[in-house]
Amino acid sequence: MGVVISLEEGKNKSASVKPLVDLTKTDMDRVNQLILSKAGSDVQMIPEVANHLISSGGKRLRPMLTLASASMFGYQGEGHVKLATSVEFMHTATLLHDDVVDESDLRRGKSTARMIWGNQASVLVGDFLLGQAFKMMVDVGSLEALDVLATAAAVIAEGEVLQLSVAKNLETTEDDYLSVIRAKTAALFAAAAEVGPIIANADKASRSALRSYGMNLGYAFQMVDDALDYGGKSADLGKNVGDDFREGKITLPVILAFRRGTQEEQAFWRSAIEKGESSDENLEKALGLITKHDALKDTIARALHYGKIARDALAPLPAGPLKDAMMEVIDFTIQRVN
Amino acid sequence: MGVVISLEEGKNKSASVKPLVDLTKTDMDRVNQLILSKAGSDVQMIPEVANHLISSGGKRLRPMLTLASASMFGYQGEGHVKLATSVEFMHTATLLHDDVVDESDLRRGKSTARMIWGNQASVLVGDFLLGQAFKMMVDVGSLEALDVLATAAAVIAEGEVLQLSVAKNLETTEDDYLSVIRAKTAALFAAAAEVGPIIANADKASRSALRSYGMNLGYAFQMVDDALDYGGKSADLGKNVGDDFREGKITLPVILAFRRGTQEEQAFWRSAIEKGESSDENLEKALGLITKHDALKDTIARALHYGKIARDALAPLPAGPLKDAMMEVIDFTIQRVN
Repeated sequence: MGVVISLEEGKNKSASVKPLVDLTKTDMDRVNQLILSKAGSDVQMIPEVANHLISSGGKRLRPMLTLASASMFGYQGEGHVKLATSVEFMHTATLLHDDVVDESDLRRGKSTARMIWGNQASVLVGDFLLGQAFKMMVDVGSLEALDVLATAAAVIAEGEVLQLSVAKNLETTEDDYLSVIRAKTAALFAAAAEVGPIIANADKASRSALRSYGMNLGYAFQMVDDALDYGGKSADLGKNVGDDFREGKITLPVILAFRRGTQEEQAFWRSAIEKGESSDENLEKALGLITKHDALKDTIARALHYGKIARDALAPLPAGPLKDAMMEVIDFTIQRVN
Repeated sequence: MGVVISLEEGKNKSASVKPLVDLTKTDMDRVNQLILSKAGSDVQMIPEVANHLISSGGKRLRPMLTLASASMFGYQGEGHVKLATSVEFMHTATLLHDDVVDESDLRRGKSTARMIWGNQASVLVGDFLLGQAFKMMVDVGSLEALDVLATAAAVIAEGEVLQLSVAKNLETTEDDYLSVIRAKTAALFAAAAEVGPIIANADKASRSALRSYGMNLGYAFQMVDDALDYGGKSADLGKNVGDDFREGKITLPVILAFRRGTQEEQAFWRSAIEKGESSDENLEKALGLITKHDALKDTIARALHYGKIARDALAPLPAGPLKDAMMEVIDFTIQRVN
């Protein structure tokens, strides 16, 4: 069940994250070292739980953004490696807590930490990683970078609570959805990209440009993720098609299909999402309605819109391979749907 | 079931926290204002959950320590109010997560947040308060204070995981126990007291003195708490006698009674703690064994030992009402057992 998306502008049709990976490779090796060392503890359960998730094969897009956005402005030093590691730890901590909150069994195709070590360990190891993240940030010594990342931490948690309170509520509007994904995803992308120019002492305009790039890339990233949940394959995705459906999550494909549906269809959505009648048969029906109302196609179209804003945010910056690589990541993020 | 403790030195037999409360009252009013404002959010569930715990009547000893330890060195400014609020938020976040980890129903005589709003909200609101705490610390702008508090955050989480991994294990030694309570309680007391002299630009010796005072007060505080669980009244304590027993927690009274017990008694402890046979009858038996082996009395004796170290840590500092009040808090902390 693939989704065909049309990149209207006919731009880069086989975009890849590879140029960014290559350009940040030396620094990412140091980030990976630091991740291993800072997830270490005499308390054996901590590295076990942390490494289970850390080694589960995420692309580490967020720390790469921090490294690239610092290097872009000629940063020389160690701070970007520490901040990139902090960003990845903040993300990992969020995932550990999310899996507890969502009662998820699988993430990226592997059992979640909570299924192996229990909810308790997932909550506490998440807290530990967050503490380690803050220690590393403090170590870098930039109060401005600290401010950006601490604010992101509070916003992320606030967004997760918001998501909890709109859960299973089909009255959720597209604006509500945007607020949730801004907080739970886009805010960390924005912070990850903004701290680069901050520690490189770049000017205010560059800092705003990178923040806007990260924020809008984050919107696009989450929307595509939410689309994939109704149209990806478990192996690629590391989760099963329909996980969000079974959890009653209100994501953009559902919001669009529900709003565009007949009364009868809306009654179906209510029973499925609000009352949890999420059998395989109902998932099939939901997928049919999503297709009927172009809800996936339009979710991707919305993602493309934010991708374009990210592109325009970066456009004024001087040309160079890092800028090109970051531009390509926008297309890559959206083309994951294919 | 009270415990009679002997303050061998015949010191202050009706010690009170009141002098400290009185001396910090003006600043604590501002802390309480800031707590309300920073626990606020457009996401309605956040202030509900946060205020449930915040308003449940803890003594707010930790933020008072921060205020007192800054004022002691003539600090003029706003920073101590923000740091004190951060300390209380860190503590509140820990409690929210603890209740999830321990599956507790009651705290300070009220239903825990997780019983009312669920585990999910408790995890996420805890994360939010932690984020807000870091934002306030960053706002104060002292990298040294940030370092102390961020380190405490990581240590606390590490200690909670350690506690999880020694849970229900009767081979836990008194040293293991000390490591756990150092991390889960003493580290935050130490940080709360140390950031005062830091932002007041006091000298290194004063900073060490306050840190040592806080650390050892924290040890004493936790030991007395653990004693109370086998000898307090539910109304005073806000928890029921025997909660730790029913959860299979390995605290000092159990460690001492177990180590001093006959083979038969040790077999009883194993079935009670390791296998969870924690009926009321078994609780009565456990209380009997704890009394037989002077395990409560000696837990308090250990607490007195740390109280004396706290006293000696503070002793070299110039005399004054704040110092007197902080000395009295040591005795008060231990006399709570009566």
